[in-house]
Amino acid sequence: MATGTLPSVVNRCRTFLTLFLLIYPSPSHCQQFIIPFKEPKDCGVEEFFDISSLSCVKCGSNQRRSPTGLSCICQTGYQALPTDKSSINCQKCSTDKPAVTSDGFGCISCPGSLSDEGKCRCPQGNILVERDVNGNYLDEAKCVACNGSRPALSVPNSSGDRCERCQASFTNTSCVCSPPNVQVSLVSIRIIHRCFVFVVCIQVFSNLTACQALGNMCVMNMHSFSAMSTDACGLFNTIFRSRAALSSTQDISYWRVNLPWLYYGDEPGLAIRVLQTNPVPIGFSFRGKNKNTEIKLIAAVYNVRGEFLRWQKIRGRSLQLCPDTAKRQEAAFSFGTAYREISELLEMYPEPLFYDVFMDLGDGDNRKLLPLPTLVSNQQYNGKFINQESMKNWYLSRRMFLVDTLSGREKPTQPKIPLSTALFVHKTSIITTFAVEYEMDQNEARMKTDTALGVMGGVAVLCSLLKTVSWKRRIASPLIDAKTMFTFLLFYAGDLANVFFVVTVGTGLYWLIFYKAQQFVYVLLPLPAQEEQFVTYIGCAFALKAVQFLHKLTLQLSVDVFLIDWERPRNKATTGEMKHDPSPVSIWRTYFVANEWNEIQTIRKISPTFQIMAVLFFLEVLGFSNLALRDPLTTLERSPQAYTPSYSLILRYGLAATLWLCIGFLQVIFFTVFYECFVEDKIRQFVDLCSVSNISVLLLSHRCFGYYIHGRSVHGHADTNMEEMNNNLKREGESLVAQRGLLPNTDIQTFQVSINNRLRSQYERIREPLSRRNRPSRLIDASSANQFEQSTRAYNTMNHFLRSVIDHVYPDMDYIVRDKLMFERVIGMEFLEPNEKSIFYNDDAHSFSNVLFYGNEVTLLIFDTLFFCVVDLGSQSFVLAAVLTYLQQMIFRLIRHSLGRRNLSNKTLVDERFLI
Amino acid sequence: MATGTLPSVVNRCRTFLTLFLLIYPSPSHCQQFIIPFKEPKDCGVEEFFDISSLSCVKCGSNQRRSPTGLSCICQTGYQALPTDKSSINCQKCSTDKPAVTSDGFGCISCPGSLSDEGKCRCPQGNILVERDVNGNYLDEAKCVACNGSRPALSVPNSSGDRCERCQASFTNTSCVCSPPNVQVSLVSIRIIHRCFVFVVCIQVFSNLTACQALGNMCVMNMHSFSAMSTDACGLFNTIFRSRAALSSTQDISYWRVNLPWLYYGDEPGLAIRVLQTNPVPIGFSFRGKNKNTEIKLIAAVYNVRGEFLRWQKIRGRSLQLCPDTAKRQEAAFSFGTAYREISELLEMYPEPLFYDVFMDLGDGDNRKLLPLPTLVSNQQYNGKFINQESMKNWYLSRRMFLVDTLSGREKPTQPKIPLSTALFVHKTSIITTFAVEYEMDQNEARMKTDTALGVMGGVAVLCSLLKTVSWKRRIASPLIDAKTMFTFLLFYAGDLANVFFVVTVGTGLYWLIFYKAQQFVYVLLPLPAQEEQFVTYIGCAFALKAVQFLHKLTLQLSVDVFLIDWERPRNKATTGEMKHDPSPVSIWRTYFVANEWNEIQTIRKISPTFQIMAVLFFLEVLGFSNLALRDPLTTLERSPQAYTPSYSLILRYGLAATLWLCIGFLQVIFFTVFYECFVEDKIRQFVDLCSVSNISVLLLSHRCFGYYIHGRSVHGHADTNMEEMNNNLKREGESLVAQRGLLPNTDIQTFQVSINNRLRSQYERIREPLSRRNRPSRLIDASSANQFEQSTRAYNTMNHFLRSVIDHVYPDMDYIVRDKLMFERVIGMEFLEPNEKSIFYNDDAHSFSNVLFYGNEVTLLIFDTLFFCVVDLGSQSFVLAAVLTYLQQMIFRLIRHSLGRRNLSNKTLVDERFLI
Repeated sequence: MATGTLPSVVNRCRTFLTLFLLIYPSPSHCQQFIIPFKEPKDCGVEEFFDISSLSCVKCGSNQRRSPTGLSCICQTGYQALPTDKSSINCQKCSTDKPAVTSDGFGCISCPGSLSDEGKCRCPQGNILVERDVNGNYLDEAKCVACNGSRPALSVPNSSGDRCERCQASFTNTSCVCSPPNVQVSLVSIRIIHRCFVFVVCIQVFSNLTACQALGNMCVMNMHSFSAMSTDACGLFNTIFRSRAALSSTQDISYWRVNLPWLYYGDEPGLAIRVLQTNPVPIGFSFRGKNKNTEIKLIAAVYNVRGEFLRWQKIRGRSLQLCPDTAKRQEAAFSFGTAYREISELLEMYPEPLFYDVFMDLGDGDNRKLLPLPTLVSNQQYNGKFINQESMKNWYLSRRMFLVDTLSGREKPTQPKIPLSTALFVHKTSIITTFAVEYEMDQNEARMKTDTALGVMGGVAVLCSLLKTVSWKRRIASPLIDAKTMFTFLLFYAGDLANVFFVVTVGTGLYWLIFYKAQQFVYVLLPLPAQEEQFVTYIGCAFALKAVQFLHKLTLQLSVDVFLIDWERPRNKATTGEMKHDPSPVSIWRTYFVANEWNEIQTIRKISPTFQIMAVLFFLEVLGFSNLALRDPLTTLERSPQAYTPSYSLILRYGLAATLWLCIGFLQVIFFTVFYECFVEDKIRQFVDLCSVSNISVLLLSHRCFGYYIHGRSVHGHADTNMEEMNNNLKREGESLVAQRGLLPNTDIQTFQVSINNRLRSQYERIREPLSRRNRPSRLIDASSANQFEQSTRAYNTMNHFLRSVIDHVYPDMDYIVRDKLMFERVIGMEFLEPNEKSIFYNDDAHSFSNVLFYGNEVTLLIFDTLFFCVVDLGSQSFVLAAVLTYLQQMIFRLIRHSLGRRNLSNKTLVDERFLI
Repeated sequence: MATGTLPSVVNRCRTFLTLFLLIYPSPSHCQQFIIPFKEPKDCGVEEFFDISSLSCVKCGSNQRRSPTGLSCICQTGYQALPTDKSSINCQKCSTDKPAVTSDGFGCISCPGSLSDEGKCRCPQGNILVERDVNGNYLDEAKCVACNGSRPALSVPNSSGDRCERCQASFTNTSCVCSPPNVQVSLVSIRIIHRCFVFVVCIQVFSNLTACQALGNMCVMNMHSFSAMSTDACGLFNTIFRSRAALSSTQDISYWRVNLPWLYYGDEPGLAIRVLQTNPVPIGFSFRGKNKNTEIKLIAAVYNVRGEFLRWQKIRGRSLQLCPDTAKRQEAAFSFGTAYREISELLEMYPEPLFYDVFMDLGDGDNRKLLPLPTLVSNQQYNGKFINQESMKNWYLSRRMFLVDTLSGREKPTQPKIPLSTALFVHKTSIITTFAVEYEMDQNEARMKTDTALGVMGGVAVLCSLLKTVSWKRRIASPLIDAKTMFTFLLFYAGDLANVFFVVTVGTGLYWLIFYKAQQFVYVLLPLPAQEEQFVTYIGCAFALKAVQFLHKLTLQLSVDVFLIDWERPRNKATTGEMKHDPSPVSIWRTYFVANEWNEIQTIRKISPTFQIMAVLFFLEVLGFSNLALRDPLTTLERSPQAYTPSYSLILRYGLAATLWLCIGFLQVIFFTVFYECFVEDKIRQFVDLCSVSNISVLLLSHRCFGYYIHGRSVHGHADTNMEEMNNNLKREGESLVAQRGLLPNTDIQTFQVSINNRLRSQYERIREPLSRRNRPSRLIDASSANQFEQSTRAYNTMNHFLRSVIDHVYPDMDYIVRDKLMFERVIGMEFLEPNEKSIFYNDDAHSFSNVLFYGNEVTLLIFDTLFFCVVDLGSQSFVLAAVLTYLQQMIFRLIRHSLGRRNLSNKTLVDERFLI
């Protein structure tokens, strides 16, 4: 508009409020710069408000305050005489010219009476003439009637001092509004004579702005109408139907000539057709050189009087009542960004504007617009809120407004509203929401999810059946009883949890990748309401996984373990009773092995705390959590000024679960490939320790199935001094001794064992005194000593028995060593039943870690993942999820460790005090 | 203003953009509802823009487009005839009345020529009269001159059809502006005749608004003036000085009658006096029933023409150009809240308003105002930016404006600016900042801090000296050499770090408590610039603490340790050579003890990870971090809609450090009082293990100082089978055996030992082959076996030697056992030198843990606290600080563990493979 230099801004214009508040004496000390507060209305009748000193100053003689209070005017009956200063003098008018002219500078005589202000007064409909055509004051004012008939058609003007042409709509012979016409001002129309006026004025004149004004009134009435009453919308519809014969505007049948387009038709299901049949002919693209995310809207803007104001681009703060920064408000018109702003309506609003909103399809010179339908929730149709029902009944409309500041007013206000003062304020708490939502039909996606769940659920049943069968064999029980069913359900819980987990992570990852990474937009995020089912699935996965985890934990806490000491006393190398040998076999190697076994119970393939920290680092420090926002941006850093949409639960879950799994996977790789090879491998260390200490470990996880670690020392003795120990280690390092394996010339030390019933029965018979110790013990102290002795004897017997079994001493409890078939490994079941002989399966993979946390990393990792995600979905806080996951891990580790320690102590008879 | 019902709001007026974008064929399929875009300016000359159909429609015959384009008017020479529809007909005027009247409805003949629009034209200064006084059309229009002389004083009105009174300022005999006066319009004043006009018009009339307008021009000129030129401010000052004789307004000498108050005086140092002498007579209070945090500002608002508009309360968005929500903008006027909003100036602004800002002191009827001074950074005085210099030279001013949209314009625009269209847009990137800062003189606080630092630094020197002396005694070196100096510095680093830490935490806590918890405001936070020194102190504390930590770590990694095995072979109970004994003493007890010692090296009195998680939980989940915001609120939860001030580094540090220390302290209490008493105490367990395994531990942290754990079994033998072990334990439990203490009938097993030089020399002589092993070993493989044998022999010799020493075998290396004096404990130094005999001090407190992490919890806790805080101050992210602290702890634990393990293996000859 104006060219020239830029507007200069007061930069850093600091308002200094350097306040010294520590000690302040009475305010009188600092009155130097304090002034009293005065407003124009505070000044007396004979004072004016001096805008320079901001105080009340007395007027001159014969003067009084002007209506604004900012200057003085002459008192009634006094004329103003200009001086050479800016002030005025006042002089009383003479008695022959007692009245003061309207401008206040002259005296004049009146044809009639005087008003209270001392001016001439004319009868209603007359004008007051004080000057002649040349501007000279008349001696006596005149009251003149205006000629209202053709062709003059004149009426008094607004200030009543001149005859003017009456309004153009008075087209008949005179300016008198003869029945059936009535002259009205717009604002009062709705309250007083609505129906009457419009039947007349619109049907007669079909005035363009009048029709728009009628439409606007209907819009302010929320588009509501009923067949009975004749409110604004009813009138509009009457006119609408009367125009049916005429052709429609712009080939749109709902848009009639000279009328605004307010409604789509009222056929049932039209809303669905309008909204879903024709796609918007614009392709949006999130990135690339054709990036196009701007939703270009344009609106034809009308005022309440029906005047067309302008075409206005809808962007930023247009249409939005919630005040916010321009940058944030722009985000509402960026395609794919879920936008919601809620605030109180505190602003002052001018009279309402009315918007016909179109989408701008662009296309250069041949620019096209697509009218967008509006759904007014409060719209009533015969008293029913049809738009709050199902989409089938919706009644789409067009034209909208924001705040109605008119319909509550009872008096028409001045038509011209000054910029700053006449804005309208209603100090009440009205909550307004502006939201942009994107909705896609998710039925197909949901169906696919359900299909996947169904198929994989079926596979899970098979899988669990197989596990149950395997379990039955391992406990050597052929009966199908309630316990079998229960165990099947436990297995099924675990498998089903995996199915839910795979499906939910897959879905989350799908949305994360396809929504965030798409260039051309073809998927839109599910709405929060559509996410409910997904959240249910996650809940299922977590609950079932927890069941599986607790099941495994229980099994681990009740595993049978026995440490077989191969050491024989030095002096007598014969078998038999050696209880009272003067040089007993030291128990310290057993203590050492038990202590180490106790320590490796809760080690894992990953560092769980590092896991939490790493996930937290990625999510909260690197800002990965911003990927879960409901917008198509893939930037990790958001400026605090930018608009932040809400989070999508699906994206949050997909992100957290994926990140957790990825970091977990990387950790497993790191520990397996690097750490365990080059730093330390606790499992292998334990096996080596067994070998060096001449102690074997028999673990029975099921009744007839378990693991065996062969630890017989290749040197014959391990219970020796440092010198010999070091020598032994050195000799072994130089391969001067036999190999450590159970079979000669092998080095396989770890086995899965499938023992037969005879062996198990014998085992249990020997163990009886030990297991009795676990029962409600120490009831009677006296028996304790006896029991104690019994269990020590049982220990020795068991040690001797198991040693003999391994040494093939008892032919009826013999065993064979074989490799497991590939297929057996895959399905986790043994085909051969250990009827005649027990079977020792070579097991290089240290699968005895299955009775430790170490061998169940997958279950633990998934459980942690789900725990983290569930807490996060509930609290929307990754930090809280991290803290609680840490606590969860700590508590379960504590439980596993302390109960496992007790179990170990019970089963191996090693005093708990040595398990430190 | 208006009463009645509330404005109704279109609730949930959703704009449905149900977009189907997957497959879209050519746009022709869906053209049903697409319309072309047309604007009024797109329509042809004989078309008008139909606001109903939003398209161009042809006008009737003899008609053409109106200037707005929204309707049709008659062509030149045609009069309009009203019809009964809203449209008009046009009829050509007859040749005797060829002109059309101004209203367009009549034909008339002219006294002079016709204009291009076919209307009558009158000479300059004349008015055109088309109707008589009653409103009847004249047959021929008249051109009439207005009488400009007294008393009529009339001129043509703006539309040139009537004579009116000329402006009140034309007070002389006629309405002609005779020299030296010139008639001007306001906007052009600055560009054309500034000086001339104002010298005349103001000095003559001393018009109130004119003086204000001159002042406003000076304000728009950034209050800048120079003694040379005569710009607006120069003129203002000329007038200001000329009024010096008259009394001042409101008793303020800088405020002259009829003039606005623009400047404070120009005496040097006046700014300091004005800003710092008189306190604001308002007490602010953050809470309680007298809560008062609102800064009540009020401004007298003038427009550019000098008219007083209103008194306006300054709150919310008044004065703020950065758009934001009302709630956030209100925060600027809440006392104590550091407020800063930055944004681009993108809005459209109307002509500038001018504000005289006062603080409202309230006080009921007797309301008082305090004028607030303004500092304009860009103000120039004789070409110098005085306000960007020191406060002494500041030139305070009053009256301010926000955006100057006028001074760049070259043409006066229409004086009445319609609400929506004439707003002024400058699309350029101008950054605007609105900030509220509170500043307090921090010199006193800083001085106090420095005093505290000085005093405590002195104490630290003493403390470090004492430590150095103690250290010298313990290494039994009387010389003061470079190493002594270096060690003193290391000690001093630690003590100084503590001093810095105490002072900074104290300061942080002081601000946290006194700023956040104060009811009546008497302290204000230091500004970011004032925090620099504080941050430096924290940096010092951290660096020095790190030095101390590394020093301690190094000492721990080189401690001398030897495990004394008391076990004797079963068969021969005599001393002497027993190498080839058939029943050697088993080494496994030694392995067990060494293994346990290895494990307790890095345990701590707290759980470091739990510490991190707990701190994170408080800060990020419970929202304690909100306490560090620069406002007086103490709420933990902030709504996302509320204004978020920046963080105060001091508060952040105070908060994080306090929280860290508190949680650490609680953890120490929990572990010491509950966990170690009722669950497990690793240190005590280790001592017990020594006793049970018949092994003593000698730790030498200094050359002649260390610790001794007496582990001689009370049963004589420990190398036995399970039965006997259990029996032994049972007997001891029933107190059937002697006590475990070193001295008979005592149970004190742990001692601090101060050994004499003889003992140490002997110790080193025996240890020589062992320490040789640590040197660049395995260079020649052949010597390795030999060396290996040597070190085994050295081990046996050492074992025998130390056993003998404890058993008082060598009189010249005897020792006595005594209690340490209280004072010795307090200052950590031994008074007696172990000249004749070594001294064993009873030590119930397990102070051997000083060579473990366990005994240095304070150092570790403070180091972690500082590490956490330093990372947070650098990154302003508690999560990052937590993650890095975790990594730091992990890395140092790893270092301590692996190097400690190697040291243990070297010193005790236990193979590293058994330290698992």
